[in-house]
Amino acid sequence: MAEAHADPNKDAPYYLVYWHVIPGRGEHIRLCFAEAGVPYSDTAFTEGGMDTLHGHISENNTGDEENPPPFAPPILKYGDLVISQTPNILINEVHNCHHPIAIDLHYEDQKEECLRRVKDWVKHRLPKYLGYFERVLAGKASGEGPLLYGGVLTWADLVFFQTLDGTTYFFRKAVAAARKSGKYERVFQHYEAVKARPRIAEYLASDRRQKYSNYGVYRYYEKLDVEPEE
Amino acid sequence: MAEAHADPNKDAPYYLVYWHVIPGRGEHIRLCFAEAGVPYSDTAFTEGGMDTLHGHISENNTGDEENPPPFAPPILKYGDLVISQTPNILINEVHNCHHPIAIDLHYEDQKEECLRRVKDWVKHRLPKYLGYFERVLAGKASGEGPLLYGGVLTWADLVFFQTLDGTTYFFRKAVAAARKSGKYERVFQHYEAVKARPRIAEYLASDRRQKYSNYGVYRYYEKLDVEPEE
Repeated sequence: MAEAHADPNKDAPYYLVYWHVIPGRGEHIRLCFAEAGVPYSDTAFTEGGMDTLHGHISENNTGDEENPPPFAPPILKYGDLVISQTPNILINEVHNCHHPIAIDLHYEDQKEECLRRVKDWVKHRLPKYLGYFERVLAGKASGEGPLLYGGVLTWADLVFFQTLDGTTYFFRKAVAAARKSGKYERVFQHYEAVKARPRIAEYLASDRRQKYSNYGVYRYYEKLDVEPEE
Repeated sequence: MAEAHADPNKDAPYYLVYWHVIPGRGEHIRLCFAEAGVPYSDTAFTEGGMDTLHGHISENNTGDEENPPPFAPPILKYGDLVISQTPNILINEVHNCHHPIAIDLHYEDQKEECLRRVKDWVKHRLPKYLGYFERVLAGKASGEGPLLYGGVLTWADLVFFQTLDGTTYFFRKAVAAARKSGKYERVFQHYEAVKARPRIAEYLASDRRQKYSNYGVYRYYEKLDVEPEE
């Protein structure tokens, strides 16, 4: 477990409530803060942070006058405002590759099904998503240059960067093959462009950027790191 | 297949692009229009509608100056604006109950895995979701009466109604048992309240409300209609 320590930003007005140890879904929000250069407090790095988190998602929490109870982290507090949830189908699909039968069961209890799902996912879904974003980037609405919409960085660029980064961690052979194929040049240019933004690069190199692990959305199991079929 | 016919609203400024035959994800949007009393055109009911739909999601579509290409229906056109996607984790989870291994494979190719997943879903995930919304409805932010937020109908109420309606179609035994348990009284009051709104009721009784079928997000397979375990 990552060690909780005094958070230098503990008095910042933005307060992210998210699990420690994994980057997970909280990472999209962290990337937004990093790019904006806005300080924020983070339960993953705050003493007692996990108690705070469990308080938010406790079955006894019914929220307050202005805020319904959050269903799940990531949760963002700003003054009296509490917002939550970053649903994302791509994230979910990748996550389900190690939980096809049940989110509550461990990978070890559904190994064969995982392999069957992963082979299909790499063959059908990965090129579908990469092809889609290649198309977005080729479209006029994306503007000049590497970003998704209007030539201006939006949260969508950061979310896309993070999902591709996580997918690359999970499916390193398949993503490497996709990259080598030359079919998704704009996608990988986008990835590199976001990664190279000074504040993002600084963040990624820092201790605030947690490593992927087999507790998270994006995992690595050698047996699931399949070669794409021809 | 539902028969395409001349759409009486074909000149309406709102144009919904969605598959015919299934209510699917397009249904959330249809419910919003129904409640607002706003006429809209719908590819499911328009001659040539499926050609229009396939044009939008064609691999050759890169969008235009203002709009990236949509990834998938539902797609909404309003004048020059094209918006798309209603990602919803709950919808996805239920849908995955008949596609645990691969969205591209038929139910018949993953029957055993479906049953294993469904048993787990009914035991763990269904009560988790119902319990969560019961908590939202019990919270102060929901306001007086049956709605999710501030006592005022929002799109969230309609989405929640539709997901519960579809889940009830899929898991009739499990949802009936949940209702009978008395643990989720607010949830089912919410459901009935939305269903009874005059415009929603009128819409639900009309031919525009398509039936669930085994092509859709919400299906019925007798073998998957499991009794919840004690």
